[in-house]
Amino acid sequence: MMEQNIEAGWLRPLIADRLTPYLEIDAPRLQRNLQQMQQKADAAGVALRPHIKTHKSVWIAGQQRMLGARGITVSKPSEGIAFILGGEPDLLLAYPIVHAETLAELLTIATQHQARITCIADCANGVAAIAAAHQYQPDCQLALAIKVDVGLHRVGVDPHSDAAISLAQQIQDAGLTFAGLVSHAGHAYGAGNASAIAEVALQEIALMRNLQQRLIDAGFAHCPISVGSTPTALAAPVTQGSDEIRPGNYALLDLTAWRLGLCTPDALALSVVTRVVAVNPHFAIIDAGSKMLSSDKGPHGTNASGFGIAVDEQGTHYEVLKLSEEHGFLQYSGQAPTVGALLRIFPNHSCAVVAQSDRFVLRHADGAGEEQDIQGRGKFI
Amino acid sequence: MMEQNIEAGWLRPLIADRLTPYLEIDAPRLQRNLQQMQQKADAAGVALRPHIKTHKSVWIAGQQRMLGARGITVSKPSEGIAFILGGEPDLLLAYPIVHAETLAELLTIATQHQARITCIADCANGVAAIAAAHQYQPDCQLALAIKVDVGLHRVGVDPHSDAAISLAQQIQDAGLTFAGLVSHAGHAYGAGNASAIAEVALQEIALMRNLQQRLIDAGFAHCPISVGSTPTALAAPVTQGSDEIRPGNYALLDLTAWRLGLCTPDALALSVVTRVVAVNPHFAIIDAGSKMLSSDKGPHGTNASGFGIAVDEQGTHYEVLKLSEEHGFLQYSGQAPTVGALLRIFPNHSCAVVAQSDRFVLRHADGAGEEQDIQGRGKFI
Repeated sequence: MMEQNIEAGWLRPLIADRLTPYLEIDAPRLQRNLQQMQQKADAAGVALRPHIKTHKSVWIAGQQRMLGARGITVSKPSEGIAFILGGEPDLLLAYPIVHAETLAELLTIATQHQARITCIADCANGVAAIAAAHQYQPDCQLALAIKVDVGLHRVGVDPHSDAAISLAQQIQDAGLTFAGLVSHAGHAYGAGNASAIAEVALQEIALMRNLQQRLIDAGFAHCPISVGSTPTALAAPVTQGSDEIRPGNYALLDLTAWRLGLCTPDALALSVVTRVVAVNPHFAIIDAGSKMLSSDKGPHGTNASGFGIAVDEQGTHYEVLKLSEEHGFLQYSGQAPTVGALLRIFPNHSCAVVAQSDRFVLRHADGAGEEQDIQGRGKFI
Repeated sequence: MMEQNIEAGWLRPLIADRLTPYLEIDAPRLQRNLQQMQQKADAAGVALRPHIKTHKSVWIAGQQRMLGARGITVSKPSEGIAFILGGEPDLLLAYPIVHAETLAELLTIATQHQARITCIADCANGVAAIAAAHQYQPDCQLALAIKVDVGLHRVGVDPHSDAAISLAQQIQDAGLTFAGLVSHAGHAYGAGNASAIAEVALQEIALMRNLQQRLIDAGFAHCPISVGSTPTALAAPVTQGSDEIRPGNYALLDLTAWRLGLCTPDALALSVVTRVVAVNPHFAIIDAGSKMLSSDKGPHGTNASGFGIAVDEQGTHYEVLKLSEEHGFLQYSGQAPTVGALLRIFPNHSCAVVAQSDRFVLRHADGAGEEQDIQGRGKFI
């Protein structure tokens, strides 16, 4: 057990109106998170194209669009299909397609719904695969950006090399529309604190602007810059020279963002409502385990000690010390929680938790709970 | 990259007949795993009641039943419902129900389908909740066993205390059928090797038989013993005195079982077929990440160094060093794998991986792939 008194931001009513465990999204907190990021983008004069991988919800994407988001970012083609069917007209598929067939159904459905698709590539195979897929759906409004590796070493061309210039030429030669440069500074999560993360954001934009200038000099006059990650978007002002930002996690946030100093507890919009099902001298056991909470300790090198913080309505809180598949183990000292009691768990990594469930409960300010489907769950292809 | 030459058991054809990534279950390996455990139970004269939490598949449960399994074990009531609707007539709900409403729908559907339900409890709240639920469905064939903590310290009465005797009395007083003792030695996974695991199995049965005798002496003549975990079921002979075993993971197995010396590579029935989507000087990147593979490093204190082993058709293999949500990072030295190439990943923990996907491909000996639904996925309530 940790200290008894915690900030008011951790405390929310635990309304016993449904069976446990379930995902709960606090509607006022969600709305505030969405508004603040949109205002930040608007004030800086950049487009906000939120990554929907965090919430995977057509309804939340609709809220983002109503607030002013210009398109969405998705991870996989099948995820994109779920959002086109949900009404999204403009998608960035921020994933390296290297196999034409993987893209076929997305382009077909995008064509039927007149949705615009921007893909990314970091190698000639990618450009060739995307061009081949486009030949089967030539009416699809398709553009292709170059992914730049700004330090995560996952996907992207080396910004110090000439790879981007030859790729831009290949894109043009393949008859595709060149859509500029895309980066994701996911390694910012490992920087440890807000000022170090802000430094990563500055390094990212410096690399991107340098490469942009070289592309302009090589004749690719239209070369917008899209950057995106929640830590860089929260820790720093929007960097000068970017045209678009693509944060995702900011909608829900989690203990990782809180530990990095990127948000206060009253911004944590996602939690899991759970019940104590057993108490023994070693642990209190809850009805949510790794299959619901995931075993994720945080993205990209942020390694939490446990799997979340469990809080009751009075402010007593416990670390989720370990997980088995359907049980969580809470550490306690002194008074154990009561068998049957409800607890709220704030997780390490919202994106991983939402990806486990088929639906969430949207909890409104008046306490009413509304079930919402998670349309993007399980879309791995 | 690891060594070039590996045992033949790691090598399977990578058939390019569908989009990646996907779960593949090797039908001959599955069948052999199921048969061997059934033969072991039959030879020892005990019932095999497999835990379906590993495969969550109605079809695989049907195979287990055809081979001689007597009932199944499930984790959550909603999981149980999926299997009753799939034709299962006899379920052990190996989860502590402490809230009557959580059980209501399961008992309703069990009554409609004349399925038998055995619940477990480790405290008076549990007995009361189950008795209350039964009052609303008095025609349900319901029995109640006592869960015994044999060392995992998750759920269960202390076998050295008199808790089981007073609970058995409460079960009888509540008008419920007493179904004996149930244990799960999940801490066996942390024992490190097969002989230490066999020792855990002997300790488990000693505790259970001692408690059984005390219950018989107290007048509870019918007190069968149900034990269950894959490591104890594989590492040791079926312990004398048990009436039922409940392994789950044995159907598919995984790197955890292999590392513990419980199986050879040719028994690993589950894998994830994935594609290389990017290569950079640091990593080769594949199209399966933590949302598909889970971030699970193995159950109960078995901590793998990575997130799986990726193997190509020639036997070159790579460690899955880290994961982001939709990408896996492979370590390589020398020749990198080719962008677009297929690889097969053997995961750390099959139960966690199956729980991510809506379906799997059953790969038959002739290479044909058959899609199967994972009906039990996402059933957390």
